[in-house]
Amino acid sequence: MIETPYLLFLGDAPDQLAAKVAQGIKDWRPENAVGQFRMEGCKADMGLTDMSLVEAREAGAKTLVIGVANRGGVISQEWKKVLVMALEEGFDLASGLHNLLCDEPDLIAVAEATGQKLHDVRVPEVEYPIANGKKRSGKRVLAVGTDCSVGKMYTALCMDAEMRKRGMKSTFRATGQTGILVTGDGVPLDAVIADFMAGSVEWLTPDNDEDHWDHIEGQGSLFHVSYSGVTMALIHGGQPDALILAHEPTRDHMRGLPEYQQPSLQELRDLALPLAKVANPACQVVGVSVNTQHMAEDEAKAYLAQVEADMSLPATDPFRFGASKLVDALAAL
Amino acid sequence: MIETPYLLFLGDAPDQLAAKVAQGIKDWRPENAVGQFRMEGCKADMGLTDMSLVEAREAGAKTLVIGVANRGGVISQEWKKVLVMALEEGFDLASGLHNLLCDEPDLIAVAEATGQKLHDVRVPEVEYPIANGKKRSGKRVLAVGTDCSVGKMYTALCMDAEMRKRGMKSTFRATGQTGILVTGDGVPLDAVIADFMAGSVEWLTPDNDEDHWDHIEGQGSLFHVSYSGVTMALIHGGQPDALILAHEPTRDHMRGLPEYQQPSLQELRDLALPLAKVANPACQVVGVSVNTQHMAEDEAKAYLAQVEADMSLPATDPFRFGASKLVDALAAL
Repeated sequence: MIETPYLLFLGDAPDQLAAKVAQGIKDWRPENAVGQFRMEGCKADMGLTDMSLVEAREAGAKTLVIGVANRGGVISQEWKKVLVMALEEGFDLASGLHNLLCDEPDLIAVAEATGQKLHDVRVPEVEYPIANGKKRSGKRVLAVGTDCSVGKMYTALCMDAEMRKRGMKSTFRATGQTGILVTGDGVPLDAVIADFMAGSVEWLTPDNDEDHWDHIEGQGSLFHVSYSGVTMALIHGGQPDALILAHEPTRDHMRGLPEYQQPSLQELRDLALPLAKVANPACQVVGVSVNTQHMAEDEAKAYLAQVEADMSLPATDPFRFGASKLVDALAAL
Repeated sequence: MIETPYLLFLGDAPDQLAAKVAQGIKDWRPENAVGQFRMEGCKADMGLTDMSLVEAREAGAKTLVIGVANRGGVISQEWKKVLVMALEEGFDLASGLHNLLCDEPDLIAVAEATGQKLHDVRVPEVEYPIANGKKRSGKRVLAVGTDCSVGKMYTALCMDAEMRKRGMKSTFRATGQTGILVTGDGVPLDAVIADFMAGSVEWLTPDNDEDHWDHIEGQGSLFHVSYSGVTMALIHGGQPDALILAHEPTRDHMRGLPEYQQPSLQELRDLALPLAKVANPACQVVGVSVNTQHMAEDEAKAYLAQVEADMSLPATDPFRFGASKLVDALAAL
């Protein structure tokens, strides 16, 4: 429904992590990203060719995707200039921001005048049910993190790719804007009305073949006070058979919360597993996914070995070293 | 903003519990309820005078309040007949249902034609922030339940009333439609967008005098898979200094979830307290509130004594036997 390929808009991203939507598209659908558009002061770089709107248009890009997230999601006047020009140049716009394109009268007016489309992938398009908690057939795995933005989506995408490579039945289930832009559908969970969160996750992961795995994209963290309710709804709506613990070891504090520290992997396990057993008494913690992007390779491998010894669980960085260990653990369930 | 007094609409409530909105108004603002309106098959009874619309109008009622909740919130055609007639008779309508009065074209048209108002207290009227987790001054207490609808709101209202009686600084903070109808303001938490749930609770319970207590109305249960995400947001957004464990001992299974059993009070304590300590490391479980409405007085007292022995915590039914024990425990913190 969103026309490809994309030009990825990085705006004035304050750091690389703020552009995780663009990074996700570039990593998982690189064939869909012809280039990147960066404004003055942009601190993110996808390693794609920097292009003007005209250059990207000539290279075949059809949609400008806003690949950068702001806390609270505000569309600044500096961004607006680019977005309006993009519509005038013949691009559609696609966004996962809270602040919707379709709530901006100027963008609506220009889109109508130019015949271009505004896609807000964050807007739920389904009336989700209230969760009923009934046991569903098929298998489900969910990554839960010590913090937000520690690699839960990548963990799920890596495990899904590895299972497909092995010929196993497997589906990635997107719950955030990046995942939805990557796969084309899913539930924009953080925009769902509170009462229907768990029901939307049940809806997203319905009955399936007994040997089919849903890889549910995680959100937030039980230890991140801003978003823990969303995580809770994933754990109870997803009724996972398996949890993966996800961690990024180099943070000074919880993302966006300078007063809060990340928990240990043991603390995460001891809080997440009893909660998961409420919805699925058979649930097990089967492995650890460590985001080692800020560690040298030797350091990363030593860290993973230590985690395996401490936790008595397989541990890997699935994006860097492959998801085999995690998929082996899931297949053994 | 909602004109009083009310006629309480009980509709075709399948049981007394389904009419908890009406019950709350009748118990906490009895002076506002001149009577009740019941349809054929109604299984709820507030003990108020049954009135026709005309009789209630003559008795001075200004607003018909929908006092009964449906799972998923549907306004049936049978209800519509009454609601339209009420508008024609000169009543405003007030509702906390998910299915909004203001989404019904016929009600809107009749309300406009008659000059009456439609109040949907469930609709958030504020743009809530994302939670920042910063420590706030003043004290906060939250009741967490073994199930939904076990008496968390009544516990908070009872403790608030007892504190006011003692001359302590105290505010009841409504997070649901009944509480909002009872007190006139609050956050309709289960209708808030997922990402802003915890922030809305922070907004509701701002900095206050160090000796002031906010009694935050609880919602859902960590053990109720349909609504646990909402409970989680209350625990982290509310950053309570004290938790009260709330329980109703006569249930066969979790409300609306026949496959699920209520946890023990110990299990509730062991799951809720570590989660609360994420946001407020000083949080303590200070007491137990038991809803004994389905127990004889002797049975209730014996049960409470057993809970006190088992949990080493003060236990009472604050609505039946007073909230003194709980307020003593809070005052001692």
